[in-house]
Amino acid sequence: MAEETGALPSRSDFSAWYNEVIRRADIMDVRYPVKGLYVWYPFGFALRNHTYTLLRSLLNRDHEETLFPLLIPETEFMKEAEHIKGFEDEVYWVTHGGLSPLDVKLALRPTSETAIYPMYALWVRSHADLPLKLYQVVNTFRYETKHTRPLIRLREITSFMESHTVHTDWDDANKQVEYELGLASEFYRELGVPIIISRRPDWDKFPGADFTMAIDAVMPDGRTLQIGTVHHLGDHFSTTYNITYEDVNGEQKLASQTCFGISERCIAAIIAVHGDDKGLVLPATVAPTQVVIIPIIVGKRGEEIMAAVEKLESELKAAGLRVKTDARDMRPGAKYYHWELHGVPLRVELGPRDLDNSQLVCANRLGIKTTIPRENAAESVKRLLDEAHDQILDKAEEHLSSHLKTVTTVEACNEMLEENIVVVHWCGEKACADKLEELTNSSLLGTGVRSKYVVDDDGPCIICGKAGKTALVGRSY
Amino acid sequence: MAEETGALPSRSDFSAWYNEVIRRADIMDVRYPVKGLYVWYPFGFALRNHTYTLLRSLLNRDHEETLFPLLIPETEFMKEAEHIKGFEDEVYWVTHGGLSPLDVKLALRPTSETAIYPMYALWVRSHADLPLKLYQVVNTFRYETKHTRPLIRLREITSFMESHTVHTDWDDANKQVEYELGLASEFYRELGVPIIISRRPDWDKFPGADFTMAIDAVMPDGRTLQIGTVHHLGDHFSTTYNITYEDVNGEQKLASQTCFGISERCIAAIIAVHGDDKGLVLPATVAPTQVVIIPIIVGKRGEEIMAAVEKLESELKAAGLRVKTDARDMRPGAKYYHWELHGVPLRVELGPRDLDNSQLVCANRLGIKTTIPRENAAESVKRLLDEAHDQILDKAEEHLSSHLKTVTTVEACNEMLEENIVVVHWCGEKACADKLEELTNSSLLGTGVRSKYVVDDDGPCIICGKAGKTALVGRSY
Repeated sequence: MAEETGALPSRSDFSAWYNEVIRRADIMDVRYPVKGLYVWYPFGFALRNHTYTLLRSLLNRDHEETLFPLLIPETEFMKEAEHIKGFEDEVYWVTHGGLSPLDVKLALRPTSETAIYPMYALWVRSHADLPLKLYQVVNTFRYETKHTRPLIRLREITSFMESHTVHTDWDDANKQVEYELGLASEFYRELGVPIIISRRPDWDKFPGADFTMAIDAVMPDGRTLQIGTVHHLGDHFSTTYNITYEDVNGEQKLASQTCFGISERCIAAIIAVHGDDKGLVLPATVAPTQVVIIPIIVGKRGEEIMAAVEKLESELKAAGLRVKTDARDMRPGAKYYHWELHGVPLRVELGPRDLDNSQLVCANRLGIKTTIPRENAAESVKRLLDEAHDQILDKAEEHLSSHLKTVTTVEACNEMLEENIVVVHWCGEKACADKLEELTNSSLLGTGVRSKYVVDDDGPCIICGKAGKTALVGRSY
Repeated sequence: MAEETGALPSRSDFSAWYNEVIRRADIMDVRYPVKGLYVWYPFGFALRNHTYTLLRSLLNRDHEETLFPLLIPETEFMKEAEHIKGFEDEVYWVTHGGLSPLDVKLALRPTSETAIYPMYALWVRSHADLPLKLYQVVNTFRYETKHTRPLIRLREITSFMESHTVHTDWDDANKQVEYELGLASEFYRELGVPIIISRRPDWDKFPGADFTMAIDAVMPDGRTLQIGTVHHLGDHFSTTYNITYEDVNGEQKLASQTCFGISERCIAAIIAVHGDDKGLVLPATVAPTQVVIIPIIVGKRGEEIMAAVEKLESELKAAGLRVKTDARDMRPGAKYYHWELHGVPLRVELGPRDLDNSQLVCANRLGIKTTIPRENAAESVKRLLDEAHDQILDKAEEHLSSHLKTVTTVEACNEMLEENIVVVHWCGEKACADKLEELTNSSLLGTGVRSKYVVDDDGPCIICGKAGKTALVGRSY
């Protein structure tokens, strides 16, 4: 929590920059004595809370929040063969309670299908119980053997939102998939984070799903970060866990299901997408402090200025803004440095000249300065925050669009992948994808791409030349 | 989630009543396939969220929220000898990650001292860093071998608020103990739950504490439920984990610490203390629905009434109230039953006569009916909710005061313990407490009792007759 000065590593070395910002901007402490487990600093946790409050408010339109146990008995966990196969290397097992071995081993949930669906089997009786749409925000666990990284690859995912819905049939579940994708799009728009949606190839879908739609963001170095998934589960799990209902004609039918997850990678995306060489750049929608007021004390008018600052603070707070005044006895420049590092969207300065001219000097986090009249300050400040949000979204969109490159040869693909996501055509055969991935050290992210910067069309497969469709290729975190 | 009718078990059989209310009022499902782990229904979880939002708002006055990992390495966990001895029978151990045994076993936190304090040792450097006051709301785990019960004795405590503070010296930490007790008292006053505070005897204090202050509520059957604890940790843990700071004179000093916990037993207290033979009785401060509007449709004025109901609902919502309209096509009586079972503090009826007379008929959950003018309805409704809160608090206070019995003989103690908490005098010797506990099948809860119904004074020990002090004796959940 001690403040450090000196320049941050350049964004061009993204990993170094990210690790340093996470630390200096009080997001997480990486010194916890277990690999892959991190401690949230209060500032980071406040950012986390505002972000999940936003996500909850979107979900609460048609879902209800609930909470299921962390521990899943091995007997339930092992029921869905495909699912367990997908997770068996990653599950933490509790084997002892006190000094005694347990009769049945307990898994720490890596995700909660096998905890929730046995209960859904009890809860779903009739078509009148459907659709059922619940979600929870929980800690989940993966025994990651790869390189771990705060918010991105953790052994304890501290903030996993998982939604689990049940429907009368496949089509209704499919509508829900679209609904959840819309919800995720709205969420990320509020965070100013542009996304690309695509359908993961079959070998990369969620274990036990009919198909997986994934949401990717692009990092400063052109690598992708998967920041959300929506899975159409069909009736795989409802078959295994016997989730059936009586339809209008009195017949027993198998239900169809979806699940949808967003983890604290959404915070990683906020940090990585918007940040700059001065530190965090937070969207006002989730910034723990939206406005910082800096009194500029020169000469003898200190008291007068502090009274004006207090009045301004309470006015802005009354308008629902999250405001702090930094009245510490230090140079304004050092204060600017501190609040810029922490990404505060708007700084408001109030000094003698502003007092005399009934004005306020505002600087947003992108460095754009505006002088506003003191009268109706709350209204002007809100407008400036909205404008700042548009500016960071524009900047992020520009970054994304300039890092999408369409290629037709493996050579060009390889070259472009150094700093970009690459758009190719692909015939749909796994053999061709395998070959492309091997030749370019990348992943075929998906098809059916939804992005205003990518045309989803037909073309010859980049490997075999047969008829193909648009596909995304990238290197992923 | 299916509604059931028929009378609840009588409150005189508290256990039966409690289990049935938990189920029928959609608080928790006990059918999860692991003993001692339960599933929150959405309604119960909404109650949980409002309750913890209240608790957080009180804590946020001078604490900051944070989040530490669930998993604690055995090496850290084992450092504080007294502490581990207190928990060794209750800790769940993770021994495997995927298919491989772990090098260092990981404990699921039963409480977080051993996770947090190694980090505090890194964070606390100077007197300027103190006091440090953080809290988290997390799931914790105890391998309970006793009879488990939803919200009261669980293997996964899903909602444990734990505060951990660090101070320059013992006295400052002691002030914090008093502050936390005041905070807990305010919290329970907002829940309408009367409490008794006492200092636990030395053999019953938190493992590693200088002393433990406990907060008890009294259940309908006169048994006690511990619903909060504040521990003065002195420098036990700061010695073990090396939490030191440089004082104003540049000398290294050991810090002094406190911790403070409130679990989901606070929800159990709400349910148990206020409930009646019709079901839950919720305080408006945390009720997921504070007001339910029931349209009374008779004759041909259905549309007119529904329009008036909609207008009323939006008016009440605009005033910040949590309101639902129950427009289902069923008898009003069945609706009353449903909302009474779920503890909604106020029911507002709106029928043709009310429309004609510009009035609303209100019934609070204790059955008290009031007719209010339609004009300024929100204001009247808020007043009725405040009155209802006073009424449930009064009722609960009366229950508590009438279940506190002062005795001077072991025989009387035994008799009174059947339905009460008992006030005795005790000399302070463990031998006398052991004897009393054995003869009465009870626990000596504590001394230094703080309650307006108990006089803390001197008197002869109930066992040995020597000079003693007031002590509480009870049977506990």
